[in-house]
Amino acid sequence: MRVLGVDPGLRNMGWGVIAVEGSRISHVANGICHSGDGTLAERLVSLHDQLCAVIDRWEPDAAAVEETFVNKDATGTLKLGQARAIALLVPAQRGLAVGEYAPNAVKKAVVGVGHAAKEQVAHMVRLHLPGVTLAGADAADALAIAICHAHHLQSAGHLARALQRAGAA
Amino acid sequence: MRVLGVDPGLRNMGWGVIAVEGSRISHVANGICHSGDGTLAERLVSLHDQLCAVIDRWEPDAAAVEETFVNKDATGTLKLGQARAIALLVPAQRGLAVGEYAPNAVKKAVVGVGHAAKEQVAHMVRLHLPGVTLAGADAADALAIAICHAHHLQSAGHLARALQRAGAA
Repeated sequence: MRVLGVDPGLRNMGWGVIAVEGSRISHVANGICHSGDGTLAERLVSLHDQLCAVIDRWEPDAAAVEETFVNKDATGTLKLGQARAIALLVPAQRGLAVGEYAPNAVKKAVVGVGHAAKEQVAHMVRLHLPGVTLAGADAADALAIAICHAHHLQSAGHLARALQRAGAA
Repeated sequence: MRVLGVDPGLRNMGWGVIAVEGSRISHVANGICHSGDGTLAERLVSLHDQLCAVIDRWEPDAAAVEETFVNKDATGTLKLGQARAIALLVPAQRGLAVGEYAPNAVKKAVVGVGHAAKEQVAHMVRLHLPGVTLAGADAADALAIAICHAHHLQSAGHLARALQRAGAA
């Protein structure tokens, strides 16, 4: 199966697609959607169209979006909220279940600790996905979200199989 | 021409459509989109679908959305931002220009003062649009936004005509 991760941002929206086979993951594609210089409404339409094109092209089976870090900058929070709505909307419109993970959970899954620097995340994403060429920091974050979701799905799968075995025994 | 006003909210999204002929305005329709109890992504899809249906049915020529009041409640701001993205996205996807007005500007246009209570807004909306039946406070706010945008378009029209006359003289 393929997992799409999205790192929501109004100016730059990172995305990454990985393939998950059993406990193995591999890189499929990553990139950044730029919203350009139009009105807010036009920029949201642009992000929507670009994210639709990503899903049409790379056909993920599941998606995950980072939970927005709510901070003291209310205007920034508002912008992020608007971008995040697009990141959640588009996969859901295509019928994909959308997972949501706190930034700390993503870092923990990829780096091993909840408080890691951006460069550390990119470094570990490269280790998880050998040969990957990152389109930028936002794309690295998006791949990290996809990896986090893959781990989560794998654990859920292990659990389901364990319960099945327990039930069959 | 018809003007759509949208009062963005994640749980309840008010909308209202008015007809504008010269300096006269009249009520066309108003209502509230409810996002239901699904996941955030599902609720955003639901709001998107309902707002699309409103535009398909009432065919507005222009749209306006209230600027979100950024407050100290960051989580609330984030939710509002996500709802607002849908309110901006849908009309823009249909090719409509989307006006944005601060809450104070909307109240000033409808009530005459920038700081008016919600009941005052509903009362004045009823006076502006005789015979209207309001679907609720959010729908009244949405009609107020449409009225504000109509005033703005009328002023712009007057100005354009005045400039035309001045140019012709």
